[in-house]
Amino acid sequence: MATEAGRIPGFTAIIPAGGVGSRLWPLSRSDVPKFLLDLAGNGQSLLANTWDRLLPLADPENIMLVVGRNHRAAVEKELPELREANLIIENDQRESAVAICLAAAIAMKSDPEVIIGSFPADHVIRNDELFHHAVREAVATAATGKIVTIGIQPNEPATGFGYIKAGAQQPLPGAPDALAVESFIEKPNLETAKEYLFSGSYYWNAGIFVAKASVLLSALANSEPELYAAIEQLAAAFGTQEWISVRDELWPQIKKIAIDYAVAEPAAAAGLMAVIPGRFLWTDIGDFASLAKLHGGISDLVVIGDKAQVLSQDSSGFVVPQAGKMVTLIGVSDLVVVDTPDVLLVTTKEHAQSVKNIVEKVRLLGNNEVL
Amino acid sequence: MATEAGRIPGFTAIIPAGGVGSRLWPLSRSDVPKFLLDLAGNGQSLLANTWDRLLPLADPENIMLVVGRNHRAAVEKELPELREANLIIENDQRESAVAICLAAAIAMKSDPEVIIGSFPADHVIRNDELFHHAVREAVATAATGKIVTIGIQPNEPATGFGYIKAGAQQPLPGAPDALAVESFIEKPNLETAKEYLFSGSYYWNAGIFVAKASVLLSALANSEPELYAAIEQLAAAFGTQEWISVRDELWPQIKKIAIDYAVAEPAAAAGLMAVIPGRFLWTDIGDFASLAKLHGGISDLVVIGDKAQVLSQDSSGFVVPQAGKMVTLIGVSDLVVVDTPDVLLVTTKEHAQSVKNIVEKVRLLGNNEVL
Repeated sequence: MATEAGRIPGFTAIIPAGGVGSRLWPLSRSDVPKFLLDLAGNGQSLLANTWDRLLPLADPENIMLVVGRNHRAAVEKELPELREANLIIENDQRESAVAICLAAAIAMKSDPEVIIGSFPADHVIRNDELFHHAVREAVATAATGKIVTIGIQPNEPATGFGYIKAGAQQPLPGAPDALAVESFIEKPNLETAKEYLFSGSYYWNAGIFVAKASVLLSALANSEPELYAAIEQLAAAFGTQEWISVRDELWPQIKKIAIDYAVAEPAAAAGLMAVIPGRFLWTDIGDFASLAKLHGGISDLVVIGDKAQVLSQDSSGFVVPQAGKMVTLIGVSDLVVVDTPDVLLVTTKEHAQSVKNIVEKVRLLGNNEVL
Repeated sequence: MATEAGRIPGFTAIIPAGGVGSRLWPLSRSDVPKFLLDLAGNGQSLLANTWDRLLPLADPENIMLVVGRNHRAAVEKELPELREANLIIENDQRESAVAICLAAAIAMKSDPEVIIGSFPADHVIRNDELFHHAVREAVATAATGKIVTIGIQPNEPATGFGYIKAGAQQPLPGAPDALAVESFIEKPNLETAKEYLFSGSYYWNAGIFVAKASVLLSALANSEPELYAAIEQLAAAFGTQEWISVRDELWPQIKKIAIDYAVAEPAAAAGLMAVIPGRFLWTDIGDFASLAKLHGGISDLVVIGDKAQVLSQDSSGFVVPQAGKMVTLIGVSDLVVVDTPDVLLVTTKEHAQSVKNIVEKVRLLGNNEVL
């Protein structure tokens, strides 16, 4: 049982570090994915923020990281405390089901009763105490055999996140706030999102999952038996001399599927899921509009970086001056200007989601050196 | 009398090369004024264009240039055919009256009957044959003792130029199109500009003046006797060992006044001015909106420079990619993006005139290295 302070016995944190975040290009690149960027503006990468946020809950030897091989070096530099035995290198990205369940299966090898918690590497969270409190409740709930998510209390009708529909209260010792999960819901339109906000029983899906590793894997075995079998083989080989050859052999067949579909939705349908409402500030920075909002406050013109390099007149929007030169704006509204040494992006907040498309254009043109 | 082909006997062309063009910053800088930029897009500076355009009318020994001392080196590089004896270096900019009248006075020293024509260094002119034809008519008219300007037939109600109101026809041998000038008019508002366009008797003031040097100087002596006296002293010293010391002594007192006020307006009031309608394409590129228009054609997105460096989606406007990097635009309208190695400017066509204000801000902040 988790106590209200100190690291949680029998708990292992997993950080799946995947996803480039191509809507944040040209800040994000294939070799500098979103989780390596300092988007919270505290001088650290989101990954390092995530690590630091977990340290009060888990010893470094109980924090595992799953990352693609092309980001291994950057991650090791970023997290000097990360144990090599806790670093799982993927051949390539196969979405979250394999990343989380493989780490869970590996953690089970040394502790069959382990409770794992999976925390995306690239989310922004503030109010660490509220976060820790929610994780402790989630661990207490997971100890009863549930698969637990932390749902974020919405404060606006966001259309960029998936939602969790909560059901009946299921208070437990150590988890007075636990609720059943009725279902997971894809990103809604604005009207539906407004209804969700108004109703009070919908939470944002923050991609956090806490469960006994054995329960999680058994749910996976039910819904995705082939993926489960491959993960069992991979976990057995991890840490042995066979690892590389087994991984290289199995990897191409690994199904690309998010843990939401592979585990959470079937488990919710089976009444196995619980949700702990999280009241901390959370955001998944999906694009420059949300990044601007995070840093916005009451200012019309938000600058991430050296404010002295930006000179503006009658202008509003969001500027990232990273090319080491002066950026001047005159009479522009809600503009997004990201100036890096090799690429300049100019768009509007309204078109922030379309950045992904221009990245695709750049790829089609073969300009891979800027991707 | 000018003949219809060949260089014009007894004619000296003067190119006053002044004006930074701060609305074109950061393309224009204090050490790279507008006349040194390739704004016509033909691989040459506007100054070199002006020189080449005058060569069919005047030998290089009959083309004079007046320029500030900080641009001397650049001008000499730009115009290898320019004679040193024809290069008048100003201590600092004192507007056009002294530049043109001093050159005229110096030209008179070797030919008291000389007819001078003054042509701004930084205007864009196309249809050279029509230009040459108009200058020949202007010279023929000047030979009769008039001060002659070439007025541009408007093709739109422009509010960025001054206008000339033409009066009665005054056809002459060699100048069948000559008209009297009733008055010079400051930049009008749009409504007035539309009336001018409709009436057919108003022309754009292109800043071109053609006159016997003696007539020009006599008009100056009437309206600005002190300036005239200083110019006489300066002209006498030019080409002698006294030049530098006389110039340095007199220069601080030289009145800053445009030739339009010092000569053209009083001469028009006295019935001394004539105008030759010019039907060539002429423009004085005042800002990025007019530069975009000049290069626009039917395209929504105008690029000056390497088009392969610009990638756009649902965007319109004007881009100058000069920083050697990719510029990407998404969903922006009528935007102006000028990307140079040390300054990025983002504005709209609508705010193109305000660039001048941001330059002033940069100056106030003391960032002189980018001015």
